[in-house]
Amino acid sequence: MLSYKYSQIREFSEDICFPLKTEDYVVQPIIDVSPPKWHLGHTSWFFETFLLKPYLQDYEEFDPNFNYVFNSYYETLGNRVIRTDRGNLSRPTVEEIYNYRKYIDEQMGFLLSDATLSEMLKDLVLLGLNHEQQHQELLFTDIKYILGHNPLFPAYRTGRQEFHKVSPIREYIEIPEGLYEIGFEGEGFCFDNERCRHKVFLNTFQISTSLVNNGDYLEFMEAGGYTNFKYWHLEGWEWVKQNQIKAPLYWHEIDGLWHNYTLNGLKPVNPDEPLCHVSYYEAHAFAAWAGKRLPTEFEWEAASPKLSWGKRWEWTESAYLPYPGFKTAEGAIGEYNGKFMVNQMVLRGASEVTSPKHSRKTYRNFFQPNLRWQYSGIRLAQ
Amino acid sequence: MLSYKYSQIREFSEDICFPLKTEDYVVQPIIDVSPPKWHLGHTSWFFETFLLKPYLQDYEEFDPNFNYVFNSYYETLGNRVIRTDRGNLSRPTVEEIYNYRKYIDEQMGFLLSDATLSEMLKDLVLLGLNHEQQHQELLFTDIKYILGHNPLFPAYRTGRQEFHKVSPIREYIEIPEGLYEIGFEGEGFCFDNERCRHKVFLNTFQISTSLVNNGDYLEFMEAGGYTNFKYWHLEGWEWVKQNQIKAPLYWHEIDGLWHNYTLNGLKPVNPDEPLCHVSYYEAHAFAAWAGKRLPTEFEWEAASPKLSWGKRWEWTESAYLPYPGFKTAEGAIGEYNGKFMVNQMVLRGASEVTSPKHSRKTYRNFFQPNLRWQYSGIRLAQ
Amino acid sequence: MLSYKYSQIREFSEDICFPLKTEDYVVQPIIDVSPPKWHLGHTSWFFETFLLKPYLQDYEEFDPNFNYVFNSYYETLGNRVIRTDRGNLSRPTVEEIYNYRKYIDEQMGFLLSDATLSEMLKDLVLLGLNHEQQHQELLFTDIKYILGHNPLFPAYRTGRQEFHKVSPIREYIEIPEGLYEIGFEGEGFCFDNERCRHKVFLNTFQISTSLVNNGDYLEFMEAGGYTNFKYWHLEGWEWVKQNQIKAPLYWHEIDGLWHNYTLNGLKPVNPDEPLCHVSYYEAHAFAAWAGKRLPTEFEWEAASPKLSWGKRWEWTESAYLPYPGFKTAEGAIGEYNGKFMVNQMVLRGASEVTSPKHSRKTYRNFFQPNLRWQYSGIRLAQ
Amino acid sequence: MLSYKYSQIREFSEDICFPLKTEDYVVQPIIDVSPPKWHLGHTSWFFETFLLKPYLQDYEEFDPNFNYVFNSYYETLGNRVIRTDRGNLSRPTVEEIYNYRKYIDEQMGFLLSDATLSEMLKDLVLLGLNHEQQHQELLFTDIKYILGHNPLFPAYRTGRQEFHKVSPIREYIEIPEGLYEIGFEGEGFCFDNERCRHKVFLNTFQISTSLVNNGDYLEFMEAGGYTNFKYWHLEGWEWVKQNQIKAPLYWHEIDGLWHNYTLNGLKPVNPDEPLCHVSYYEAHAFAAWAGKRLPTEFEWEAASPKLSWGKRWEWTESAYLPYPGFKTAEGAIGEYNGKFMVNQMVLRGASEVTSPKHSRKTYRNFFQPNLRWQYSGIRLAQ
Repeated sequence: MLSYKYSQIREFSEDICFPLKTEDYVVQPIIDVSPPKWHLGHTSWFFETFLLKPYLQDYEEFDPNFNYVFNSYYETLGNRVIRTDRGNLSRPTVEEIYNYRKYIDEQMGFLLSDATLSEMLKDLVLLGLNHEQQHQELLFTDIKYILGHNPLFPAYRTGRQEFHKVSPIREYIEIPEGLYEIGFEGEGFCFDNERCRHKVFLNTFQISTSLVNNGDYLEFMEAGGYTNFKYWHLEGWEWVKQNQIKAPLYWHEIDGLWHNYTLNGLKPVNPDEPLCHVSYYEAHAFAAWAGKRLPTEFEWEAASPKLSWGKRWEWTESAYLPYPGFKTAEGAIGEYNGKFMVNQMVLRGASEVTSPKHSRKTYRNFFQPNLRWQYSGIRLAQ
Repeated sequence: MLSYKYSQIREFSEDICFPLKTEDYVVQPIIDVSPPKWHLGHTSWFFETFLLKPYLQDYEEFDPNFNYVFNSYYETLGNRVIRTDRGNLSRPTVEEIYNYRKYIDEQMGFLLSDATLSEMLKDLVLLGLNHEQQHQELLFTDIKYILGHNPLFPAYRTGRQEFHKVSPIREYIEIPEGLYEIGFEGEGFCFDNERCRHKVFLNTFQISTSLVNNGDYLEFMEAGGYTNFKYWHLEGWEWVKQNQIKAPLYWHEIDGLWHNYTLNGLKPVNPDEPLCHVSYYEAHAFAAWAGKRLPTEFEWEAASPKLSWGKRWEWTESAYLPYPGFKTAEGAIGEYNGKFMVNQMVLRGASEVTSPKHSRKTYRNFFQPNLRWQYSGIRLAQ
Repeated sequence: MLSYKYSQIREFSEDICFPLKTEDYVVQPIIDVSPPKWHLGHTSWFFETFLLKPYLQDYEEFDPNFNYVFNSYYETLGNRVIRTDRGNLSRPTVEEIYNYRKYIDEQMGFLLSDATLSEMLKDLVLLGLNHEQQHQELLFTDIKYILGHNPLFPAYRTGRQEFHKVSPIREYIEIPEGLYEIGFEGEGFCFDNERCRHKVFLNTFQISTSLVNNGDYLEFMEAGGYTNFKYWHLEGWEWVKQNQIKAPLYWHEIDGLWHNYTLNGLKPVNPDEPLCHVSYYEAHAFAAWAGKRLPTEFEWEAASPKLSWGKRWEWTESAYLPYPGFKTAEGAIGEYNGKFMVNQMVLRGASEVTSPKHSRKTYRNFFQPNLRWQYSGIRLAQ
Repeated sequence: MLSYKYSQIREFSEDICFPLKTEDYVVQPIIDVSPPKWHLGHTSWFFETFLLKPYLQDYEEFDPNFNYVFNSYYETLGNRVIRTDRGNLSRPTVEEIYNYRKYIDEQMGFLLSDATLSEMLKDLVLLGLNHEQQHQELLFTDIKYILGHNPLFPAYRTGRQEFHKVSPIREYIEIPEGLYEIGFEGEGFCFDNERCRHKVFLNTFQISTSLVNNGDYLEFMEAGGYTNFKYWHLEGWEWVKQNQIKAPLYWHEIDGLWHNYTLNGLKPVNPDEPLCHVSYYEAHAFAAWAGKRLPTEFEWEAASPKLSWGKRWEWTESAYLPYPGFKTAEGAIGEYNGKFMVNQMVLRGASEVTSPKHSRKTYRNFFQPNLRWQYSGIRLAQ
């Protein structure tokens, strides 16, 4: 069962990369985007480091240099290649990394076939698989960035072209004031930052049933949203001016018509699609312009059973902070989430490139407020 | 009454600057520190811009160029001298700025002597005075920075040398779980960010009755606090490494003994004094090392009647975010607080250089997590 | 004849790349190093742009986007991909670029088979071939940088491992004072910056017959050369401190023993080999430490018939400036050399990776004084 | 005699500062501009360090901290305040620095009254006085920068307003080819970089008898000189684009009319005045646009007896390099000139703010090619 899950998830990472040319695996156009070959190696390194090396008897390391190359931010585990350097590494080659994956999968097969596997180890495997799923979404967003910033605008795929029409009827539902339980409960996997279920008091609020779409956002742009400081945080306004931001990421004005790069190539912007690739600054400014606000992550979670969600990661008005009682785990695994709990904003929901079965209403995603390469969108509250 | 308050507060700003040499009024060693003469001008400009020009009949502007020089961050009011440039401006001279203050005070005298002054204008005057008090604290912190970063270490004063001994008994008091009302209530002045009193549910927690003192912090330093990443946020750790941080601001190791610059000059560090001039990153790392945590701003406010506070601004675990129902006021006054509500952390309490009568338990101070030139300290919770 | 030369030189570029993996073609670790696939494309683009498009009847462009991707610094010819971006481009793929080369070579075949080809066009072809040879040397230096900055230190080749022993006898020959003719004369190809042969008066000087070797340089290092400012230009000293320079590029101290990365992998430093990969700053500091100086480019040229040269590009004490009478050619070709004539230093000679028949005593190479990734070395004068 | 010269030159530094407000002495708007009080202190520190401390018996240092504050770039003499920090130092105050000067002058009086003063010490005093004169010119240029970058544009003086009309007749004189002696000869003071008189062979050339004036330069601007890359070095072109350069320093377009800030305040540009405050990049681009070139420093020196010069420092086409036989002096004095001999261009002549008797035809001034705050202008050659 776990073994089947393992294969299925591991294979999906390779499926995502199937349309790539070897060269696409290598580049790192900005610091936040990692080369696809790095994702493939790093997720394997995770299993090697936290499961095979400590728990599989007589395990032989694939290559001792790989720890140096594929560690991400785990300070506990020795020097890591500084993140900006990932795009400078032509070796190990893509082929070597696929061999590495194959080797790790074989060895994990031995480990998983052990009928006496402890619950603790099963939990670690589950963590590794959820970690891999996180990187699967990053594979999509990073590949999109790599191809979408190439002057030739190559398409990632030609077939499947999902169209997500946002309901034209914009409704607000009301959630009554009261004490709500927030955080994960029940069986199954969750990250440490979702635990510590606790009570939060919410005032009565209203939240939109649908996401902001491209047409809405075009109105904001045409109304001068990017040129009037009064909608923006001071920091957001400086970001706009310094980077000369005039539209969401991947939008290009060609002969007076807005286009956006999609995984299927460059297309005219469809006003009915949910808006994508905006920063928290833009989400906040749009809400201010519309006379609304963003929901908090607690409001979002309380309202979520009544919302249709999963197409876009939705920026909230909440900073990424520990829940009451949050404790960091011991060792390298403990570096997973807590060390990021400053200067980031929470996004809730999931997106069209989130891996299957890797979303739940208590999931707390988080990014710096200026980042836009994730499939991030906007839902309004009041 | 308001007129008396006006004179008293305005005079205090000049009293603070009394010990300065003309040259001390001019420099800006880092972007966060403004030249004292700028503070004196800017606080006067506030009254001129928001009260005299719109509301005093036949008012004649002192100098039309001063708007350009003394505007701080009010985008509504025309181009401002970018903040980094303040330290390059030798003119207007200190004498001219004192003349400007005198002129503004005379003209404000006319305005305040109007028996029919509306409540709205009285509120605006009060806002101006509270604004001036905020800059009085900044005068202290900025003067300290200017003199404390001069290789001659000149003292600001020789007399009064307050000694704040922190009680050696470290006690934790327990606050029971429940719904607490948070935010300003009652008569009197408060800032817009304190309004919108609302309910917050708190779990049972314990909070220390006393602040962390220098002796405690020396233990952290000696235990390798600055060299072990595991106590730090990732961002904090990078800040430590990049800036080679090894001690609080103003601390210097001289012949193996720690000294710190105070307003009375360079002195050996007193282990019994409350710790001062640490960043949020350091506050968080210290708490992690001590096996505790920082309180949230809501916990702090709920516990505050039982705490002795007012010596240090106390870093909390809360990001600076709007209270439910927060609305930005119209016009330039509306830029006062809301535009800063991203990537800053809340500090509660007050400090030994906070102006008299300028503190209350609902006051929300806020700074970026790396800043240390305020009188910031640490209180622990668990 | 020209046609034969064309094939020979064009093939050599591909031969250089033969040992590479696809991934090695893609990366750009620093701004000065270009991805090998870019070199292969850019040299082809040169023939397409300056010969095929203007002069081959009915020529069909291979891909109109390639001008955007493979232009280097020719402002005349439309927007170019800014240099820092080259390493972000996964497309066109290596295979596509080899197809591009093949297409260009076929088309050039048609052009070159024209018996009536004008002298002007033959000269342009020659320029293109010399340009390609310049990029052949860059292919070597850039591949070395890419592999030599990979933590796995992969070797470029395993076979041929030239050993250049520097004669242990260090002799100075004297060149008498007098008027010397400097600059290219005679038949054959030269760059525009070598023309305008002119007289230069030289005082009597002495110049070493052999290059500085690794052993000499180790003495300088052991004598504290990198820690005593008095040997350095102010700018060089700041470069040393800011970049924490302690040895030539590619040198690594492993367990107390100096190693250097070579095209055959990481090896212990051989004291008898000519020193390689130093900046002008280092060359100048070494000479100052040794109580000598670097020769000027005019001294070098005058002495060159009596020197053995060709293993290292030799830094001179001459800035890269126009010869009397130098004129920039019209159009894009005119951008070739003149626009670089500020803030660069001249190197004379050639190196072990200079292409065959691509060196002559009047050749003026030039780089910024901090650059080290070329095969640069030191010859002393007095 | 030397004593009289000493007083006269030392007093002139204070005369230059007479019109300043205390605040004007303190600021440092850019790294190249030093606060006037620093110049006053540094020139005194020179006499204290190189004459009084080593050679005046029983000399008592004025303040041991001053070495730390007023050292400029003499690495030999202990840590110096890094140059960017000069503008952060409010202390020592202006009054203290005038006291310092007074003290140094008294003590120098004792030294100079010694009838047995050695020639070596007399030479050192002369060097100190020439050093002071260099800083006198910097006082003018730095004061101009400080006042000219203040939004109030205060005038430095109201009276004397020299008008330098450039002769409308633009003539070229021809200098015949031949061997010329270059470098200082004869009695009297010169800097080490002028010594080592040597022969230089020059081709026949023509050089303009008059400087380029503002009217000429306006033609270049109107002809699109700042928007056509073909006149520029690559590095110059990037400087233009990055800094959005559109005119010489101190030029402002107000209501369609060009003004420039002068020591007498902001005035309309006078087309007949010699052009001032251009970089080497601009000088080169102007010459390229005009179909001419800049003279080399050798051509300039050979032609100088036939030229009228002294209003502007004239950019030459020569990089700042050592003359044949140049040797650095031992000790701190040796740092005077040699360490700057890389990446700077030579200017010849003198300017209207050069100190009296501080110019000669062999004087080699030098600055980085982007700098403009000196009184730099253009003379053409062909």
